[in-house]
Amino acid sequence: MYSNLDSKEKILFTPGPLTTSLKVKRAMLNDLGSRDEDFARLVYSIQQKLLTIGHCDARDYAAILMPGSGTYGVESVLSSVIGNEDKLLVIDNGAYGKRLIMIAQAHKLPFEVVSFSEGDIVDSDVVETRIREGGCNYVAMVHCETSTGILNPLLKIGSICQKLQARLIVDAMSSFGGIPIDIKKNSISYLISSSNKCIEGVPGFCFVIAQINELLGSEGKARTLGLDLLSQYRAFIFDGRFRFTPPTQVIAAFSQALVLLEEEGGACSRYERYKENHATLMRGMSKLGFICPVQREHQSPIITTFAYPKHKNFRFEKFYQELKNRGYLIYQGKLSEADCFRVGCIGHIFPHDIENLVSAIERVCVSMDIPLPLKEEQGA
Amino acid sequence: MYSNLDSKEKILFTPGPLTTSLKVKRAMLNDLGSRDEDFARLVYSIQQKLLTIGHCDARDYAAILMPGSGTYGVESVLSSVIGNEDKLLVIDNGAYGKRLIMIAQAHKLPFEVVSFSEGDIVDSDVVETRIREGGCNYVAMVHCETSTGILNPLLKIGSICQKLQARLIVDAMSSFGGIPIDIKKNSISYLISSSNKCIEGVPGFCFVIAQINELLGSEGKARTLGLDLLSQYRAFIFDGRFRFTPPTQVIAAFSQALVLLEEEGGACSRYERYKENHATLMRGMSKLGFICPVQREHQSPIITTFAYPKHKNFRFEKFYQELKNRGYLIYQGKLSEADCFRVGCIGHIFPHDIENLVSAIERVCVSMDIPLPLKEEQGA
Repeated sequence: MYSNLDSKEKILFTPGPLTTSLKVKRAMLNDLGSRDEDFARLVYSIQQKLLTIGHCDARDYAAILMPGSGTYGVESVLSSVIGNEDKLLVIDNGAYGKRLIMIAQAHKLPFEVVSFSEGDIVDSDVVETRIREGGCNYVAMVHCETSTGILNPLLKIGSICQKLQARLIVDAMSSFGGIPIDIKKNSISYLISSSNKCIEGVPGFCFVIAQINELLGSEGKARTLGLDLLSQYRAFIFDGRFRFTPPTQVIAAFSQALVLLEEEGGACSRYERYKENHATLMRGMSKLGFICPVQREHQSPIITTFAYPKHKNFRFEKFYQELKNRGYLIYQGKLSEADCFRVGCIGHIFPHDIENLVSAIERVCVSMDIPLPLKEEQGA
Repeated sequence: MYSNLDSKEKILFTPGPLTTSLKVKRAMLNDLGSRDEDFARLVYSIQQKLLTIGHCDARDYAAILMPGSGTYGVESVLSSVIGNEDKLLVIDNGAYGKRLIMIAQAHKLPFEVVSFSEGDIVDSDVVETRIREGGCNYVAMVHCETSTGILNPLLKIGSICQKLQARLIVDAMSSFGGIPIDIKKNSISYLISSSNKCIEGVPGFCFVIAQINELLGSEGKARTLGLDLLSQYRAFIFDGRFRFTPPTQVIAAFSQALVLLEEEGGACSRYERYKENHATLMRGMSKLGFICPVQREHQSPIITTFAYPKHKNFRFEKFYQELKNRGYLIYQGKLSEADCFRVGCIGHIFPHDIENLVSAIERVCVSMDIPLPLKEEQGA
């Protein structure tokens, strides 16, 4: 089905897996021995580069790679470092905040939740009060809430955590590498991201950047074998190896993706490209009359949510399929309250790709007999 | 010599990640939308083929794919299906049996262990007594104990489990697809394997073949979010999707690997090739005077353990490196009691590759001033 691949290649306007460079994918054409020293060296160099992207020092922080989905990385941190005597505050303003809650529940962690509406940004004053009142010594938050595209106030929450001596755990899945983050300045103890987001690798592993001091203090707290963060950290220190079989090809691809990120000029330059992608998208979609439910000032350039046109001829399945036939994959919505779809601006895509997508959206609307621009009551 | 891609390409004589066909790796050159229907169809077809390999019916069994290492699959089963009222008997005769114990400990499962020496096969009479005496309703065992290469008596243990109404959980990591296994005939409730073993895909996910009735009865028992087996089963039933980002490229590679397995004639034919690889290895290594610590009748063709030559000039690091310089990666030992190395006979390798390896081993011994054939006291 996928054998005549190239003719069917699509551009992915998704939050990941993303469109990646062919160079990245070609790095997967070798078989590597997972216990060979060459591979350990490759992993070590990846770890050092991840620390550089996070602006942190290898004496204080370690980058720990783990096979599997990004969510495993979040679960690894929560289930490895929070003991029965600790107290976690989970900040929730969307689907990925709710996932933090689900992890805390699955492991029966001692935790509280502070929730904000979907589409609303996290209010740091409320968070501060809740940390104090709950006596919480851990706080977990999502940086870019991929379900809405909202960018939460990391620096503010970090300052509060530092003031109140709470450790900050940040799900930076869809921001790390694409939005500059200074891990130390933001007082982050654990940051989690994955191979297939803004570093533009392919999916297959996640990574945690952990404050070593904090991590060493978590001895005996791990609630799983596979996702035991401290044990994996120690294995890397001991002989540079994964405890369990790593996705060797995916890791080789990631190494190549890091080279491309450097060539682009690092996270700052990549952020500029993503912002340009996003601005191009917003200009084009506004012209067509599409409306975003998220307030502009909270909107990240990573992924953007659009409300369905309210026109009677609009059916999402047909809209999606017609765009796919033209070579573009968009993403379904993840808001509980509104019918919407999402367009990702990350990955190996450029403003001209966005322009092509917007043109395709225009043609698809016309083919569906939806007059453009959408009228106010149609777009909202 | 293996491919035209990279002069540094090595042949892996390991238990996985393995040498894979270039066709398999080339299937990774596309980006796939993980929530697109084409991908769901790809996953569905993989699931059906896995059931066919296991000789089981889709009405009674389901194949559940999970991102990550093979060990995650084992942890997924143990942590998802064994409740506090259950009682698990872990059968241990090597490193992977001990890993089952570590998982049971991490999740504080109610369990007992029946241990046999490394290098000894599992004694099914002892197992039967222990199931009865312990009142165990679950039994977990490793089929091919990759640490020694021993093949444990699956059918015998399966019959005992059926007689005593205990559910059998089998870690078939390094056997499924390479040694024919009839899941139903062997009374297996849960079988676990991974993408990078005998199906000859690349590493990045594992899979569980589960008896649906049994799995449905595990409601409420899962102790993690990410490795919750029943929830992932239900997600596949609901819309064919992974709950968390799958390694899309690795899955496309696996699909191609399944095509190659079919072309080879299925698990029976592949088993024949592996046996021929193994026989070629044993002939060659015997001629050189190398000795296996495992008794011949318990030895699987999957991976073979050899004792270090006792000659004063033998240093494993040098031996390994010299073989690597010649393009061959072998594997370190995993026996606690003896100095040994391992040679895998699985993957996209053929008797002539084994012959080349044996020749290289001969030349390396000569270059290290180790006279061949090894004398009895040198090899043992």
